[in-house]
Amino acid sequence: MNDSYLKFVNSPLGGRVARSFGLPKPEVLRRYRADTPEFDGLIAIGAGRAPQLLDALADVVKSTGLTSVAHESAGLWIALANRHGLMTGRFEPTEPGAHARVAALVFDASGIEDSTQLDALYAFFHDTLRSLGKCGRIVVLGRTPETCDTPRQWTAQRALEGLVRSLGKEARRGITSNLIYVAPHAEHQLEGTLRFFLSARSAYVSGQVVRIDAGSGAVSNAVDWAQPLAGRHAVVTGAARGIGAAIASVLAAQGAQVIGIDIPSAHDALVDTMRPLAGTALSFDIAADDAPAQIAAALDETGVDIFVHNAGITKDKTIAKMSEAAWHNVIDINLSAQERIDDALLAAGTLRDGGRIVCVSSISGIAGNLGQTNYAASKAGVIGRVQSMAPQLRARHITINAVAPGFIETQMTAKIPLTIREAGRRMNSMSQGGLPVDVAQTIAWLAQPASAGVTGQIVRVCGQSLLGA
Amino acid sequence: MNDSYLKFVNSPLGGRVARSFGLPKPEVLRRYRADTPEFDGLIAIGAGRAPQLLDALADVVKSTGLTSVAHESAGLWIALANRHGLMTGRFEPTEPGAHARVAALVFDASGIEDSTQLDALYAFFHDTLRSLGKCGRIVVLGRTPETCDTPRQWTAQRALEGLVRSLGKEARRGITSNLIYVAPHAEHQLEGTLRFFLSARSAYVSGQVVRIDAGSGAVSNAVDWAQPLAGRHAVVTGAARGIGAAIASVLAAQGAQVIGIDIPSAHDALVDTMRPLAGTALSFDIAADDAPAQIAAALDETGVDIFVHNAGITKDKTIAKMSEAAWHNVIDINLSAQERIDDALLAAGTLRDGGRIVCVSSISGIAGNLGQTNYAASKAGVIGRVQSMAPQLRARHITINAVAPGFIETQMTAKIPLTIREAGRRMNSMSQGGLPVDVAQTIAWLAQPASAGVTGQIVRVCGQSLLGA
Repeated sequence: MNDSYLKFVNSPLGGRVARSFGLPKPEVLRRYRADTPEFDGLIAIGAGRAPQLLDALADVVKSTGLTSVAHESAGLWIALANRHGLMTGRFEPTEPGAHARVAALVFDASGIEDSTQLDALYAFFHDTLRSLGKCGRIVVLGRTPETCDTPRQWTAQRALEGLVRSLGKEARRGITSNLIYVAPHAEHQLEGTLRFFLSARSAYVSGQVVRIDAGSGAVSNAVDWAQPLAGRHAVVTGAARGIGAAIASVLAAQGAQVIGIDIPSAHDALVDTMRPLAGTALSFDIAADDAPAQIAAALDETGVDIFVHNAGITKDKTIAKMSEAAWHNVIDINLSAQERIDDALLAAGTLRDGGRIVCVSSISGIAGNLGQTNYAASKAGVIGRVQSMAPQLRARHITINAVAPGFIETQMTAKIPLTIREAGRRMNSMSQGGLPVDVAQTIAWLAQPASAGVTGQIVRVCGQSLLGA
Repeated sequence: MNDSYLKFVNSPLGGRVARSFGLPKPEVLRRYRADTPEFDGLIAIGAGRAPQLLDALADVVKSTGLTSVAHESAGLWIALANRHGLMTGRFEPTEPGAHARVAALVFDASGIEDSTQLDALYAFFHDTLRSLGKCGRIVVLGRTPETCDTPRQWTAQRALEGLVRSLGKEARRGITSNLIYVAPHAEHQLEGTLRFFLSARSAYVSGQVVRIDAGSGAVSNAVDWAQPLAGRHAVVTGAARGIGAAIASVLAAQGAQVIGIDIPSAHDALVDTMRPLAGTALSFDIAADDAPAQIAAALDETGVDIFVHNAGITKDKTIAKMSEAAWHNVIDINLSAQERIDDALLAAGTLRDGGRIVCVSSISGIAGNLGQTNYAASKAGVIGRVQSMAPQLRARHITINAVAPGFIETQMTAKIPLTIREAGRRMNSMSQGGLPVDVAQTIAWLAQPASAGVTGQIVRVCGQSLLGA
């Protein structure tokens, strides 16, 4: 909450000090605000040979209202954009020293079938990266490697990951860099995800790879992007404070009717959080034996469209010093309780067909962490839950995904000793911690009807943390 | 090569200095030496409910000559070990202050079917970790999540990753921690891999997850573990110097007939490297148009059992400043040339059925790196090559895998500026860089006949680097 270094180096004096000592200068990230246009500026388009996603891209350019400019690698774009009724021009590099005018760089790599064809990506990013403004967006669109017809094609598509992650580490200045793989016949599922990665809503999501499939349900037409969750009932566990409260708030802002769950001792805080959202507060200890049945019963009347498993605890100690209770409670609350609750909701049909489950994992669950054998095991288990449940839930058109937060500024991280906190804050491509709203916006994207093609995915909200596995 | 800090803190004076200032004290890693027993000391065995790999484990304990002690979680072990004719005892914790006597902790988690059953892992590692000596080994054996019958089982097995990676970060003292997933009916393929992870040969391999499947060829019986590559013809590209020379040397030490390939300008160095190995030196520019055909022709007479794609270059620059040639040459040499050569060898049948392809990827290919868009793309592409080719090569009983080195002490890394080099060295669970021989030993394991069940895998040789994705 209180990153005083970030504030300092973004003051006139602090900026001069940082420059003279060569200190990192984290950018003040542009985040979504209801009173500011969500999309603004130029989007530069590039493409490899035989790009297959330009039509889908044109739909997104149209719906966002961005003005497109075509890099020479995307010669097809101008005629195609005209067909879609879009104003478009040719990409012109920003003069050295001038204000960089481009808000987003999008490259359609879907047609690349061999590693020798990757040169087109070099040409595009070599020419355009310096014209990308602060807090700009880099998105590469590719074909899901596992769906490719030949090893050569799979290899070339897989190579994109190395490029996109390197671009994120080079670009800095609050710029995000992400890769979206689109399966064959899933072009119609691209819009919601591409909008998210172009939007200020994804301010702290960088270096990520998302796979989009054709989805299993009906395609939602005519999305109201201002209120994409209108009419949906969304449950958030651990909603009283911190990240959970932010999730409830963002889901409500997107039109959802929110039901917050937290432990009985947090009842007053939960009520305070729910009041301005016109939400419902339910007090349950999710780890209690009878909680799954009670939660299912409490939600039975309205039904549930979105369930966010956010509640979690930490009890850090090295395993030699850890008590059995500390191990057991962390695994039970962070992992086993989620399993029991989902089983109850799914058996009772409380979670409606076409629903969304979003779990909160953690970078610790990916990379492991000193003093967190219990927490990391629970959060790695959450990843297993997402991967194992996704195919099972497809028949009911339910998606399940997880977000894995990195260093997020909360009351919990505020208690970390200063030097470790500073290291956690700076060891990512944004050189700063994220905010609870960054996690919440990512969850809201996954919860949307337009995310029907996204399931079984783990998306980190970490500013492209250096840490990983 | 010259980690003077490591030497300093392991001197009597330096050790005192490091202690008083709270500096990291990297352990001098125990590495394989032909004149020292490969396995020595106690192996403590733990198990979850209904463990399924204890018979396979007993075979390995027998072949390594280790003395086993059973933790109370593995009550079945004592009777089973007796049946296998093994001396065994009960695990007794080391007295505080006494010399830790246990060389390896192995837990069979294969029977765990639900997250509530993970408590057994806590009990085992809580009781035993402090008894594990310097440069000890932690290995958890599980069931491949993707092969599990239920989401609950998949979830619990997947949770093991978080535990194992956290244990690696906690254990320090040169201890490695790795996870081996064994597919159903693949128990007979465990031995070679488990031996590697228990051996000093895996000194710098930690925090890794390896999946073993049933393999597609005949099972090799009666392995000569002193010369597992006897009678095999092994090709190593980039063999003149550095990591390539170390690979050639280790493969030769394990009995292989080595053919080294390097560019014509390195011919003299290559000849010098091959001479003591009684190997063959071939000068080719692997990126030349006619190289694949010429290499296939040169190898046609003897045929090839093992092909190690080690040759690679870096041409670091941020993409805005990178020349087209720097992009193109790195992709071409590190990735496209491998594709062309393999296609030629496979088409001509030069690489024999039952063969082994081992590629060298990089942490940069996993995590991306500033100034390495070209290199990271090429090394991510190598991962795609391994993943896409593995299923294709199964019919010919050929495996393909990659190693991904982290910070390895070579002439290349010696040129990195001191502060960055120091950060690269220390940011891993071993607090030091690896040696070329560490990469070479890992490749040799993947190249062995006993690794028939390991294919499509990426194994990092990074001392459990903090860096990742």
